[in-house]
Amino acid sequence: MDFEITPRMRELQAATREFIAQKVVPYESDPRQTEHGPTEDLRRELVALARQARLLTPHASVEMGGLGLSHREKAVLFEEAGYSPLGPTALNIHAPDEGNIHMLEVVANDEQKERWLRPLVRGDIRSCFCMTEPPPGAGSDPGLLRTTADPVDDGYVINGEKLYITGATGAKLAIIMARMPDGSATMFLADMDREEIRIEEQLTALDTCFTGGHAHVRIDNLRVSKDDILGEPGRGFHYAQVRLAPARLTHCMRWLGQARRAHDVAVEYSRERQAFGKPIGHHEGVSFMLADNLMDLHAARLSIWHTAWVLDQGRDGGLESSMTKVLASEAQWRVVDRSVQILGGSGVTDRTIVARIFRDMRAFRIYDGPSEVHRWSIGKRIAKGVA
Amino acid sequence: MDFEITPRMRELQAATREFIAQKVVPYESDPRQTEHGPTEDLRRELVALARQARLLTPHASVEMGGLGLSHREKAVLFEEAGYSPLGPTALNIHAPDEGNIHMLEVVANDEQKERWLRPLVRGDIRSCFCMTEPPPGAGSDPGLLRTTADPVDDGYVINGEKLYITGATGAKLAIIMARMPDGSATMFLADMDREEIRIEEQLTALDTCFTGGHAHVRIDNLRVSKDDILGEPGRGFHYAQVRLAPARLTHCMRWLGQARRAHDVAVEYSRERQAFGKPIGHHEGVSFMLADNLMDLHAARLSIWHTAWVLDQGRDGGLESSMTKVLASEAQWRVVDRSVQILGGSGVTDRTIVARIFRDMRAFRIYDGPSEVHRWSIGKRIAKGVA
Amino acid sequence: MDFEITPRMRELQAATREFIAQKVVPYESDPRQTEHGPTEDLRRELVALARQARLLTPHASVEMGGLGLSHREKAVLFEEAGYSPLGPTALNIHAPDEGNIHMLEVVANDEQKERWLRPLVRGDIRSCFCMTEPPPGAGSDPGLLRTTADPVDDGYVINGEKLYITGATGAKLAIIMARMPDGSATMFLADMDREEIRIEEQLTALDTCFTGGHAHVRIDNLRVSKDDILGEPGRGFHYAQVRLAPARLTHCMRWLGQARRAHDVAVEYSRERQAFGKPIGHHEGVSFMLADNLMDLHAARLSIWHTAWVLDQGRDGGLESSMTKVLASEAQWRVVDRSVQILGGSGVTDRTIVARIFRDMRAFRIYDGPSEVHRWSIGKRIAKGVA
Amino acid sequence: MDFEITPRMRELQAATREFIAQKVVPYESDPRQTEHGPTEDLRRELVALARQARLLTPHASVEMGGLGLSHREKAVLFEEAGYSPLGPTALNIHAPDEGNIHMLEVVANDEQKERWLRPLVRGDIRSCFCMTEPPPGAGSDPGLLRTTADPVDDGYVINGEKLYITGATGAKLAIIMARMPDGSATMFLADMDREEIRIEEQLTALDTCFTGGHAHVRIDNLRVSKDDILGEPGRGFHYAQVRLAPARLTHCMRWLGQARRAHDVAVEYSRERQAFGKPIGHHEGVSFMLADNLMDLHAARLSIWHTAWVLDQGRDGGLESSMTKVLASEAQWRVVDRSVQILGGSGVTDRTIVARIFRDMRAFRIYDGPSEVHRWSIGKRIAKGVA
Repeated sequence: MDFEITPRMRELQAATREFIAQKVVPYESDPRQTEHGPTEDLRRELVALARQARLLTPHASVEMGGLGLSHREKAVLFEEAGYSPLGPTALNIHAPDEGNIHMLEVVANDEQKERWLRPLVRGDIRSCFCMTEPPPGAGSDPGLLRTTADPVDDGYVINGEKLYITGATGAKLAIIMARMPDGSATMFLADMDREEIRIEEQLTALDTCFTGGHAHVRIDNLRVSKDDILGEPGRGFHYAQVRLAPARLTHCMRWLGQARRAHDVAVEYSRERQAFGKPIGHHEGVSFMLADNLMDLHAARLSIWHTAWVLDQGRDGGLESSMTKVLASEAQWRVVDRSVQILGGSGVTDRTIVARIFRDMRAFRIYDGPSEVHRWSIGKRIAKGVA
Repeated sequence: MDFEITPRMRELQAATREFIAQKVVPYESDPRQTEHGPTEDLRRELVALARQARLLTPHASVEMGGLGLSHREKAVLFEEAGYSPLGPTALNIHAPDEGNIHMLEVVANDEQKERWLRPLVRGDIRSCFCMTEPPPGAGSDPGLLRTTADPVDDGYVINGEKLYITGATGAKLAIIMARMPDGSATMFLADMDREEIRIEEQLTALDTCFTGGHAHVRIDNLRVSKDDILGEPGRGFHYAQVRLAPARLTHCMRWLGQARRAHDVAVEYSRERQAFGKPIGHHEGVSFMLADNLMDLHAARLSIWHTAWVLDQGRDGGLESSMTKVLASEAQWRVVDRSVQILGGSGVTDRTIVARIFRDMRAFRIYDGPSEVHRWSIGKRIAKGVA
Repeated sequence: MDFEITPRMRELQAATREFIAQKVVPYESDPRQTEHGPTEDLRRELVALARQARLLTPHASVEMGGLGLSHREKAVLFEEAGYSPLGPTALNIHAPDEGNIHMLEVVANDEQKERWLRPLVRGDIRSCFCMTEPPPGAGSDPGLLRTTADPVDDGYVINGEKLYITGATGAKLAIIMARMPDGSATMFLADMDREEIRIEEQLTALDTCFTGGHAHVRIDNLRVSKDDILGEPGRGFHYAQVRLAPARLTHCMRWLGQARRAHDVAVEYSRERQAFGKPIGHHEGVSFMLADNLMDLHAARLSIWHTAWVLDQGRDGGLESSMTKVLASEAQWRVVDRSVQILGGSGVTDRTIVARIFRDMRAFRIYDGPSEVHRWSIGKRIAKGVA
Repeated sequence: MDFEITPRMRELQAATREFIAQKVVPYESDPRQTEHGPTEDLRRELVALARQARLLTPHASVEMGGLGLSHREKAVLFEEAGYSPLGPTALNIHAPDEGNIHMLEVVANDEQKERWLRPLVRGDIRSCFCMTEPPPGAGSDPGLLRTTADPVDDGYVINGEKLYITGATGAKLAIIMARMPDGSATMFLADMDREEIRIEEQLTALDTCFTGGHAHVRIDNLRVSKDDILGEPGRGFHYAQVRLAPARLTHCMRWLGQARRAHDVAVEYSRERQAFGKPIGHHEGVSFMLADNLMDLHAARLSIWHTAWVLDQGRDGGLESSMTKVLASEAQWRVVDRSVQILGGSGVTDRTIVARIFRDMRAFRIYDGPSEVHRWSIGKRIAKGVA
């Protein structure tokens, strides 16, 4: 039982912290940030900087061009990257690419890796993960999957609609989850340039930090070959889990950085802004909120580190990642909400970055399993005596 | 002790409910809604509809062209108006005009009423309330007021900066709070067209429901005459209270309508969306949130009604309006946040109106006194034995 | 819509407040208060005082010897009575007698009223309500009722176990809920002196305010006649509802008084106790808690008043009483918990009465429907569109 | 960064868990448990069992007869010991002896160790820590200390009152904090048998787990010699900190065990108790509470472990122990409160041990610094830029 950060972690932490502060934060006022995320142009500029700093796609294996980080190393580095809303984009560790890269490393065959994974790791292309669907299709309950893959000749024809597909617009690769005639699910890799895949609608969302934003995607009679199957047919739900447990955790890491940023902005303001005869940070009404922030950040970090350690032991970590998802997403949200409150007018306008963090973070309590689905799943484990 | 709604209230409620549903809700997808609120064009179109429905500026006195509502009648009608984000704009009961109209009725002289109040009540012009300032000026603590009014000849010269001025862009009338040489504060009425008043910066805010948005305003050597003083010189802080207590309460009323709307959208979704074998509303994880929504709406409404009754008795209502501001703003926020959570992806994107309500409402826990300032003030009353 | 207290209410309020302060509070240190409530001796002494003050059993009809209070009048009077843990005992309005008296007035026949109701109203005897059972019997789910009433000759034989029976020890009358052969439920009136009814075990509970405490009761072959049936056979569940909705509300009223008492003790302490250079009530950490107390008391009171008004209109009030039960029990609990916290050592020992209120109140979030069952029931109404 | 429990920890954990389950839990229904804690007789019987199991006073150094545990080892072992309300008494690791033993090891001279520390470690005698006083003396604010030590001849005369002195009745050793003429504070060791030290009043408290309960102690003209000074004169406040930081943490450890126990009892009940057609643990209303319990236990444990590690590094750990005190005491309280709620009637009566844990634990949010004082202190560190 040891909470020491290793020398390598400390080095990665320092390098990332400096990179974010020096190179990324100045871009936060760059006009190339739209309602639907940074432009591709801005993204490439940031990626180039990370490449230069040798911090690009650090979670990928060394063979593939990354730094081959352990989950615990990711915990430290990703928190730092998350300190700027643009950090994860710069380091190419944002959703959904970060999780897609991880899954492809584990599941894809060599040919697929060469074709899709390498350019993803280089930050040359982006990918999207086509899983969730409009009602009555798959949402929190993946079992409702309605997109179909029907066998034809030596391949399949895919038909369906996908909703809330992050990064779809501008992505090169689509990973599509579809239902097989036998009811099982399979993941397919497809080129987003195919005309059978159409952006039906670009959604406007609370968040604006994901390149490409979120879209409603329609797939009409998309022909794919057996070579386009990711891993084995029928194992789609399993691979989704391979992807989800760590992807869920990396969300927690990145948002921890964002929450810390919001807190830091609030702390600075609380030292300067006067009210009723003293700096507002000397009023317990404010200082108690800052203290709660610190405790929430601390508890979230410890839970993230613990789950990262569990995953590093090669354990499944399903329970731990569910607990951490709920603990961290709710604690981090409280931090951001309190920071907004302390900042007053500066917290709800563009006079600080906190209003943006507030908008960006809200969906985190929903995606990768809403708090309610995780509580339900933890409760079921308790009922069964396995938690 | 009687919770019966009077026949007149019931009539106003029904008429407003129908007006909102039939006339206003269809405009919610009108493209003339910008980051900085509805365009002036859209606003005038909506105002014309309310005029037609005889629901325009209903809180103004009958002499001035309103319906002369009691606070309790406002409670009922404003809740209905708030059911659409565009409702208060249509009825001309949105901040800051609603409060400005109320204050002008109480404090302005006949000439000022003719010049400013009548066109405001008709919805022909808009006004803004220039009180808060950038640090280190007046914010939650009005005592920090730094804008000055220096006597010259038969008038004053005003200099200062004002921040978070809602509706400033496009307003015709500015009500400016400034500090006199003796330290007291005075309110002045000024034409926003004067070149000495400049929109320094249009802020981007979380909310997008106020026509004109929020601005940073600079006032440079603005000459005003004694006739431009609102009420008596030196009584500015007093008039701010005259304005604030009811204005605070009408915020609670309008946002109650918004919260109810968010809840209704969530209820409808909870009946249709399936997950894990049944509508999500049949899962206690969701149904408990809906039950909590109902209780929060109920408690907020009762507290609003009670404070409205207190004000109708001619009592000051300072304690009650502070309590209601905290109770209602926090309860209504919880309702909207839970509704977002239940709606999942539809709650954080433009697929429902709830994401917009979420953005619009956050600042309500801050303006007209943040929760912390009200708790502090209630606590002081308790310490003094007057609560 | 009028929150004015009527002159009669004001009179009852003043009389009760004075009676509690002058006559009842001095008994709070009387040694005749045991782990299982006041002794019968103490109870009779208190009842005699209330009789003298013409405040005894005020909710009973005038014919039966009470004051014939409306629900709203009860709201005002019971809150005052609850200001002392001994108040409801003195006024004979404590659970379960208060609810039993109400139900007997509505359902009992003349003979039963003469035999049981009159002495109950006079405070000469006590009663208990034998409904809940040990697992797997009736608890939060009354449908699990296992006590049976088997027809024999011209009567029935009752067998079963009852748990958490408040006031059983020392009661003269038992109202027993039992299942009929056809699955319906019937209420029977029985003399607790019958040897077929046995106190199996006197439970030690957190609370100590109910005369007779709580017991595990065993009923073995208890012969009852048809004349012992309360109301009609098979309508037991219906009568339980007749009893519950108002009984639930009177709990809220009494505990509101207790919560107010705890708050008052905390306020007084916060003015006197110094820490870090000033009275603790001048620290926002404490004053914010007191402000929250005031808001919780206010919201609970308004919700109680509203439901009382609904019941006074002759409406069923099922939804309203569920909402008020949750709102009030949770708000009042927070008040007491915060008061304990403010009082520190005095809050967790017998140096103030607050530790006793803390112990006495915890079960209130459980009995007459735990918060969870009410949320579930409110949620079901929402799902059905009837809330 | 490693969350692995060492083999030694695992061994201690297993041994303690078995000892508690086999030897201690059966005593939980022993009648020798009074309102003021276990009798001395029962305490000695339990201590003898722990001695036999080689688990007595495990935190003392090996030289003194303990196991010389690190803070992290304590974290693991104390949690197990806390699983029964009698566990800490049996292992002689309960407050205040546990903290007193630690402080004496660090500060006492050899003679004092022989006289007081050895018999304390053996569990032959008990001690009390006389610090807090009745208003207007030292409470949360130690600076208000009013007990005086006046120099006479070759010693001092101590006069004062001490309140909430845990374990005073029956203790052999008193550690008395008193103010010197120069305003500094000194700790003195005194024999509780001295007639100048009097138990003024035995308090009745919510908790019943501390041997000797809590008392109001009066010290009248107590003559002590210079040899009775603990450490150096004038360093009393410093030693109080030496005692407090780890003592605060061991409270968190022990209560974690209690909270886990409450949760386990609730889990078992949730599997068996049926309502509305299924075990209550299959209702989300209950299973979500159990999930929240698990998350609260997890977060509390991680925070405790982390602070233990900080202390093991020889660091001061002031900030960390403050954060953990708040985090753990509030999380653990929520766990116990939810467990009570799930258990219903069994949670508020002696039908389970949970009602007792509920009573025992409430004061933990108050002693060793109430949450509010810790939030205040954390907030001050933030304001100063040292947190």
